[in-house]
Amino acid sequence: MKISWIGTGVMGKPMALHLAKAGYAVSVYNRHFDKAKALEPEVKAYHSIESCVKDADIVFSIVGFPNDVKDVYLEVMKHVRPNTILVDMTTSSPTLAIELYAMAKAQGLFMLDAPVTGGDIGAINATLSIMVGGDEDIFNRVLPLFRLMGKTITYMGKPGSGMHAKLANQTVIAGNVMGVAEALVYAKDKGLDLERMLSVITGGSANSWQAQYNGMKMIKGDHQPGFYVKHFLKDLKLVLEEKKDLKLEVVETVAKAYQMLSDQGYQDKGTQSIIDYYLKHLI
Amino acid sequence: MKISWIGTGVMGKPMALHLAKAGYAVSVYNRHFDKAKALEPEVKAYHSIESCVKDADIVFSIVGFPNDVKDVYLEVMKHVRPNTILVDMTTSSPTLAIELYAMAKAQGLFMLDAPVTGGDIGAINATLSIMVGGDEDIFNRVLPLFRLMGKTITYMGKPGSGMHAKLANQTVIAGNVMGVAEALVYAKDKGLDLERMLSVITGGSANSWQAQYNGMKMIKGDHQPGFYVKHFLKDLKLVLEEKKDLKLEVVETVAKAYQMLSDQGYQDKGTQSIIDYYLKHLI
Repeated sequence: MKISWIGTGVMGKPMALHLAKAGYAVSVYNRHFDKAKALEPEVKAYHSIESCVKDADIVFSIVGFPNDVKDVYLEVMKHVRPNTILVDMTTSSPTLAIELYAMAKAQGLFMLDAPVTGGDIGAINATLSIMVGGDEDIFNRVLPLFRLMGKTITYMGKPGSGMHAKLANQTVIAGNVMGVAEALVYAKDKGLDLERMLSVITGGSANSWQAQYNGMKMIKGDHQPGFYVKHFLKDLKLVLEEKKDLKLEVVETVAKAYQMLSDQGYQDKGTQSIIDYYLKHLI
Repeated sequence: MKISWIGTGVMGKPMALHLAKAGYAVSVYNRHFDKAKALEPEVKAYHSIESCVKDADIVFSIVGFPNDVKDVYLEVMKHVRPNTILVDMTTSSPTLAIELYAMAKAQGLFMLDAPVTGGDIGAINATLSIMVGGDEDIFNRVLPLFRLMGKTITYMGKPGSGMHAKLANQTVIAGNVMGVAEALVYAKDKGLDLERMLSVITGGSANSWQAQYNGMKMIKGDHQPGFYVKHFLKDLKLVLEEKKDLKLEVVETVAKAYQMLSDQGYQDKGTQSIIDYYLKHLI
């Protein structure tokens, strides 16, 4: 089976290499050829999408934004053979995923939407959580490859369902991360010791992965990105687009705050820097 | 050492009994005498605060609302001997805690504010988290008794700091619980399987105690109270009172939602029923 992989950034690189290490022939493409070339000889790098995908049995992608996904697949679909399976692992628009699925189907191709959570560490350690939408028989065919990249692989249903699941997941994170920020801002205002406060939070019914992972970074003013503000804001905007007339008040509030944070130059900082929204009076 | 205990509800009852089991003489008072009487012979029940506290070395209380706390201590302070230690474990107003501390001090008494988290199960199993404000030497004197009731005992600082810590903790929970509700509402709207969705949420960076404990209750429409809407709303209103000019947008949003939920007759349901705010279009 010949695998093509498009997008070899912080996530795509280790994911593609897991497939190569398992013995598959992997062709890779990146807009910046040197980033693809750097992965040789484990994989073979190509200068164009056409040359990368034309003999593929399955094409994976993990790129930046929905527009990138669209551009990539409009090109991919021109060049792949019939019956090729396409798998977009970018966190992208469910509506676009449904459109691409239909386009693929119309020309005898198969498509899955399969975004991930778990970050760069999850990608490196092959412990990602992968949420998959599309036809279940196609999901089952790709499952052995997903298992090389992730630990928890969940079939979520019809096309777009993988993307929807990822957006619901980000909605939870929105409340969690901003709730921790507000609690620490309140505690600081009241003169409490913030490390003791965080240990109270993580010791009981307020505990969360976000408190454990981002709480101390907030206290220390450490803005290093585990997850970028710009990517989280992209996800939250997708939720706002997709929710239609649902009134999701927490995610709306959090999206506005991250938009302001991003506008103030925080795009490339970590999501924990939302605490500056309060401490630096960006409100 | 003679201990008096005021308030023998779902929390106070097991807490008082832990002290009695450890060998202390415990006098108890409840507005409803039968609730105090039911705990005999492990403790001794009294018909009035005066008779309950007049020989006490230390008085504990865990009652309902800040007004109850105020009423109780105005009466307690009339009848206790000098040097008695007073410990309010109600989740109550930090401002009131500071006032009561000052009143106590002015008449030669000592006072701590020591609210708890961990719910009825934590009270029964003596695994509560207890956050304490007041003088540190008094905290150290009471610490052996706190250890009979809780697992994690944290000295948070000056009078009121225990209450502030508890309110910060509830602020985190506000974001966590409503974020889970919004994610499940979104997922339901998109036709996803909610149990699979919840397993994705609890399997990664969106995980929280609230998702684990309340997520499935939300899915099942189980409104049984682990923690009452009316008590959570009390806590959130205290945050809004105490935050002064801090703009804590998530907790403000969540407080409004719980107010509406309460107004619709949900006071005695569990906090997880916030999902009805969305599903029943209370917005």
